[in-house]
Amino acid sequence: AQIALEQGYETRREFDARYRSLLASVDQAIVFVSVQTGRIEDVNEAAASLLGIKAAALKGSAFANAFSDRSTGELIESLMNATLSEEDGRVTLRATHSGQSVVVKPVVFRAGGQRILLCRLAQESDIVTTSDAAA
Amino acid sequence: AQIALEQGYETRREFDARYRSLLASVDQAIVFVSVQTGRIEDVNEAAASLLGIKAAALKGSAFANAFSDRSTGELIESLMNATLSEEDGRVTLRATHSGQSVVVKPVVFRAGGQRILLCRLAQESDIVTTSDAAA
Repeated sequence: AQIALEQGYETRREFDARYRSLLASVDQAIVFVSVQTGRIEDVNEAAASLLGIKAAALKGSAFANAFSDRSTGELIESLMNATLSEEDGRVTLRATHSGQSVVVKPVVFRAGGQRILLCRLAQESDIVTTSDAAA
Repeated sequence: AQIALEQGYETRREFDARYRSLLASVDQAIVFVSVQTGRIEDVNEAAASLLGIKAAALKGSAFANAFSDRSTGELIESLMNATLSEEDGRVTLRATHSGQSVVVKPVVFRAGGQRILLCRLAQESDIVTTSDAAA
């Protein structure tokens, strides 16, 4: 039983390491947001750089604080509506710190009994390039 | 103790769900490779599509099989050398199925006592566009 526990622990550590390295290495700006609280659960440096706020300050803060044009309730509603659209739902928002237009592409998933929004962020001016690179 | 165990389990499931949704949602083609065995530990659909091989067939297979120009030993050595280069080490390989030139950008990390290569793949013709999108 001790070996099984340790193997479970090793497997978990490997998953955590994979998750961390993936989040840090992808070029895309990524933000995980709790649907229930509207708060940022995790974020990578690419997203912090795009929003003009340090990753450590973003974690745990309301995602809506990063934008000047929505309350938390309005933002989560907009993002959830976008996840329901037939193809590639997007929400365009104004970043508070940089003043830039940011396009958010959300998907929703269930994790440990709660719903999480995975948001891919891009500057509006980069959207055409980003789509090409994704093709 | 039961509650602590269940909370640990929930936390783990949430991490797994985050990892899965992140790997599936990023635009970049991603392959995780074991340094020790040279085999693919995980891969997303973007990478499967780029290599012209189904994700289910890629998982567990030797990463070198996807390319026509390296043995497993040579491939892992090339990738490990690239991770040591000062900036943005890359290895260009020929995909067996598509015949395309594929550029691999590897990073190495430790997970549960073994070393894993996280490889970001791109078609050589897309490289300039991808770098722009990442800026």
